[in-house]
Amino acid sequence: MKFELIKSRVIGVDISSFRTTIGIVDIRGNIIAEDSVVTSDYSSVEPFVNKLCGTIVALAERNEGLDTIRSVGVSIPSANYLIGSIVNAANLPWRGVIPMAAMMRDQLGLAVGVANNSHAAAMGEKVYGAAHGMKNFLLVDLGVGVGSCIFSEGRVHLGARGFAGEIGHTCLVPGGRQCGCGHLGCLETYVNAKGIVVTARELMEESDKPSLMREEPELTPKKITEFCNQGDELAIEVYRRTGHALGIGLANSASVLDPEAIIFAGGISNAGKWLIGPARETFEELVFPNTRGKVKMLKSILSDSEREMLGASAVAWEVEEYSLFK
Amino acid sequence: MKFELIKSRVIGVDISSFRTTIGIVDIRGNIIAEDSVVTSDYSSVEPFVNKLCGTIVALAERNEGLDTIRSVGVSIPSANYLIGSIVNAANLPWRGVIPMAAMMRDQLGLAVGVANNSHAAAMGEKVYGAAHGMKNFLLVDLGVGVGSCIFSEGRVHLGARGFAGEIGHTCLVPGGRQCGCGHLGCLETYVNAKGIVVTARELMEESDKPSLMREEPELTPKKITEFCNQGDELAIEVYRRTGHALGIGLANSASVLDPEAIIFAGGISNAGKWLIGPARETFEELVFPNTRGKVKMLKSILSDSEREMLGASAVAWEVEEYSLFK
Repeated sequence: MKFELIKSRVIGVDISSFRTTIGIVDIRGNIIAEDSVVTSDYSSVEPFVNKLCGTIVALAERNEGLDTIRSVGVSIPSANYLIGSIVNAANLPWRGVIPMAAMMRDQLGLAVGVANNSHAAAMGEKVYGAAHGMKNFLLVDLGVGVGSCIFSEGRVHLGARGFAGEIGHTCLVPGGRQCGCGHLGCLETYVNAKGIVVTARELMEESDKPSLMREEPELTPKKITEFCNQGDELAIEVYRRTGHALGIGLANSASVLDPEAIIFAGGISNAGKWLIGPARETFEELVFPNTRGKVKMLKSILSDSEREMLGASAVAWEVEEYSLFK
Repeated sequence: MKFELIKSRVIGVDISSFRTTIGIVDIRGNIIAEDSVVTSDYSSVEPFVNKLCGTIVALAERNEGLDTIRSVGVSIPSANYLIGSIVNAANLPWRGVIPMAAMMRDQLGLAVGVANNSHAAAMGEKVYGAAHGMKNFLLVDLGVGVGSCIFSEGRVHLGARGFAGEIGHTCLVPGGRQCGCGHLGCLETYVNAKGIVVTARELMEESDKPSLMREEPELTPKKITEFCNQGDELAIEVYRRTGHALGIGLANSASVLDPEAIIFAGGISNAGKWLIGPARETFEELVFPNTRGKVKMLKSILSDSEREMLGASAVAWEVEEYSLFK
């Protein structure tokens, strides 16, 4: 009897509201081939899945065939790994609970795992990035939303229903800013992209200080970071306040979780020292003394272009091969 | 060759600042025999450990011999399971880092596991109590302090250095009440025994309402609960405020952890509906929508007399038998 063919490659899929990227990834994290689909072209989910699966099959056939593919991992906002579904996504055109993993599996004949962005990013960091070798860490994804993923004793902590990680929706200021989730004062409303701009506008109203921010018609966190780099004091104060809020949220999580490290991903983490400096200061003030001074704060070492793809591919390796069930 | 003797019993030890209780516990959680030592008689730890180990050996010898004992589990404030030590205990006479597990193991020739009160209580609930069959839950210990223990995917989440669970030291009110840990505004300062009395005094000053609390020279949470049961409105308001604070802390943890249940132990949990009613109300208002309405709130079903002993015995079963290393 001959050895069986080793299925040494997986498909990683990164679905965001505008674009969906598909890649073939090998065991060592080399992205062998890529293709993409325009997500926003599809207002309903069935034709999107048809197009996505067709593109996956064609990509695999152009690259040694679908037979060499073990499984598929998908990074999608609001995905729940335990039930293989997207649940009430605020940032996708498709409403309600969508059984994405089953829909794709039925078309592809391959096992499919779906994970939200923080979960996929944490898997990517664990397998290929800054968390390699760590058993207990917290990944924090700072962007349009603020998500997190907990690694506990070497495994993802999903929670009883797979909804763990919503650090962005912990209550920072009772009765504070209105959050998209319907609550008031969520951490995310002070730390996400929109919240940072709100803080900037508040500061410009409170103060008479000159600032480059005042001349900027379309203020974004990225522009505020640029102004910080130019020494703009009010811009620096925006990130100081944001970092203070973030530091409280991180200290509260770290007192409960005692992680080895907190790893930052997402666009807002590019604010770098302007954000993480003040966050660290507040964090060390507030975290439980036995944990103080011991938690590393790290930036993802995966590049923006490969992070989601490698995270999705790491998720693909977590699911059991479909052939085991056939 | 004959079968070897099965070591079907463990020693559970519950060390509190006043008294240390020792029990022989079988696999099904029957407490077979008990003895005790007066903790507060020992201002230094070595003579205490000598007395404790002597008492353990004598108890075992009176009950079928030390050879039938598999291992020892110890519930102690501020214990760290990973390093087998008590670390900076605020409520014990012994200072610094004390390698309690190694000290006892060297005298007994048995494997010893030490766990803090929340960790031991959670193990007891998992094996013998309200959390039986649960994989993801949060145990919250409400007493002199406010501790917690997280179960993640069927196992205790200890954290990178074994200090996880410090929910009592999450920041509830930035710049708020002074906490024993040195920080300001910790959840514990609003929810522990002392904090509840502080809230009662604040309320009596704020309001002119008559209250049984005003006549009580030594106000305690237990007495406030009795006044609630008698319909005292100000006493009910004390627990309403306390429950609101607790509800925020629990919602923040549940948004991050998505537990199946929160299980309450400790003296303050005897306030029952007066505390848990308002806590639940705030919790449901603030917890992330996908988790809302789904987290059970349960009271420990182990009696006060057996909880710590059964928790300690469950910890004993977690450690590897010492003979494996000899």
